[in-house]
Amino acid sequence: MEALQKYTERIEKELNKDLFPSQPIELYEPLRYFLKLGGKRIRPVLTLLAAELFGSTSEKALPQAMAIEVFHNFTLIHDDIMDVAPTRRNHPTVHEKWNSNIAILSGDVLLIKAYQFLANIDAEKLPEALHLFSTTSIQVCEGQQMDMNFEERMDVSIKEYIEMIRLKTSVLLGAALEMGAIVAGASKEDRSRIYNFGQYLGIAFQIQDDLLDLYADPKKFGKMVGGDVAANKKTILHLTAVSDATPQHIEILKELQQEDNISLKIDRTRQLFDHLKVPQKCRETMLEYQAKAMVALEEINVPEQQKQGLIALADFLLNRDL
Amino acid sequence: MEALQKYTERIEKELNKDLFPSQPIELYEPLRYFLKLGGKRIRPVLTLLAAELFGSTSEKALPQAMAIEVFHNFTLIHDDIMDVAPTRRNHPTVHEKWNSNIAILSGDVLLIKAYQFLANIDAEKLPEALHLFSTTSIQVCEGQQMDMNFEERMDVSIKEYIEMIRLKTSVLLGAALEMGAIVAGASKEDRSRIYNFGQYLGIAFQIQDDLLDLYADPKKFGKMVGGDVAANKKTILHLTAVSDATPQHIEILKELQQEDNISLKIDRTRQLFDHLKVPQKCRETMLEYQAKAMVALEEINVPEQQKQGLIALADFLLNRDL
Repeated sequence: MEALQKYTERIEKELNKDLFPSQPIELYEPLRYFLKLGGKRIRPVLTLLAAELFGSTSEKALPQAMAIEVFHNFTLIHDDIMDVAPTRRNHPTVHEKWNSNIAILSGDVLLIKAYQFLANIDAEKLPEALHLFSTTSIQVCEGQQMDMNFEERMDVSIKEYIEMIRLKTSVLLGAALEMGAIVAGASKEDRSRIYNFGQYLGIAFQIQDDLLDLYADPKKFGKMVGGDVAANKKTILHLTAVSDATPQHIEILKELQQEDNISLKIDRTRQLFDHLKVPQKCRETMLEYQAKAMVALEEINVPEQQKQGLIALADFLLNRDL
Repeated sequence: MEALQKYTERIEKELNKDLFPSQPIELYEPLRYFLKLGGKRIRPVLTLLAAELFGSTSEKALPQAMAIEVFHNFTLIHDDIMDVAPTRRNHPTVHEKWNSNIAILSGDVLLIKAYQFLANIDAEKLPEALHLFSTTSIQVCEGQQMDMNFEERMDVSIKEYIEMIRLKTSVLLGAALEMGAIVAGASKEDRSRIYNFGQYLGIAFQIQDDLLDLYADPKKFGKMVGGDVAANKKTILHLTAVSDATPQHIEILKELQQEDNISLKIDRTRQLFDHLKVPQKCRETMLEYQAKAMVALEEINVPEQQKQGLIALADFLLNRDL
């Protein structure tokens, strides 16, 4: 996304600064490593864009953008331990490259570091920024716990699933935007609107992510198409299929989950999903949230042309090839 | 300590309130459990005493006292994972009663919760409170990392050891006191003095803790005398012995570390330490820090009679039976 590149580069430049002391090296080396693994840096860019939208500068919101990005990386380091994930962005995870204790403790430091970045704000705006940040952080942890719970449960509803992705990923997008709005001194109403824009955008993005996993063009998709099906993940596709299936279809789904031939498993599951109109239904749900996001953005009290950056970002996020 | 009982009870009352939502229960049940395991609650009591010392009320400093206590419990939950500790205050640790993932994530939530308590302060005092809290929190993590490093190292100096206990435990005592001073609007100078009082008191307390472990009256000591020796822990006693020992003594110490007969091991090690005048030397170091603490307290610009609570607390902490 060319229009956004300068913002991403600004964040990368900041992340490449010397953010930590040298000692104890066991604590700080993993953080230096992890923060340089890359990523789209969407969250901090949202903060910068929102600050500009409401008449401030992106420079002024830089510490808060960093707080959001650093917090996000803290959650990744700890989630990777919990998920026993060996790699992240094609590199070994912190607990894999060092060990779990290092990953726990350096993650803890990163969460505190996020608060340090956050605090670098006009004093009169600190209480609101802090309130938003802590509330959101706790929600993200609750979302991660729900996600872990769902792995054990067989009766997850679509509503519960959407609530889980809202907490685990979408509230942070909302908070990233509202944080920029706080820096810029936006009204309560506009703060709430831009938060909702981010939250709904995040839900739409996650649903699209589930769809892409099975329906992406293999030539354009970065990883194996059907990975979620292969791993028996309870994505919104799976939950939608289950919610509309006859007992016979449920039986077939269960058999497919045991299937050892992965390519057969993926093909047959896709056929069943198609038969149950799963992709259409999920796409409808996604479009509902996309529409809600755009309505929230429209209602924000600033001239339309100032919204172009956020519209471009939403477009970038939600129009990946299906 | 009768004089302090009303403060401890006030904290217990607050900890017994419903601090968390009901769901996800997997996240909040462990926190309810852990916060009710008891403990001396010294840190939050320090915050309340300091607020009163500088002319405020303990009620006003209650949220900040809770922030300190909740933060302390967060460190215990995560440290217990890292130390593979099966019990805490005679009850199973969180990772033992539930699992490591739950202990990581509920610990994370508790750290954020500490910031939420902290933020409940007059807006103009928030930046200073936040700065002190985050700086201290990072130092505590650094101290924990140093402690873990020392387990692997054979060349730890006494100076390094004192720096480790300063970071791991003493800075939080200093910060607990300074937090009360911030709530009460104390001067920068007095804030720094009361911080130093707590910091030096903490170092003296830790040295005494090491001494008690080997030299306590078994009838009055709550646990096995000599536990640190049995576990080959590098306490300040051990480091002092090594720093003054001849090669022959070092050889004997090494042999004793391999000794299977625990009671023989403890007796012989104590004899060697006595021969090397280890307890006297450690007691001297402890008294140095105690004296520094009392000087810092003396220099604080409030009438002497207002300092009686803190003097009583220092006395309670530093005059346990040797």
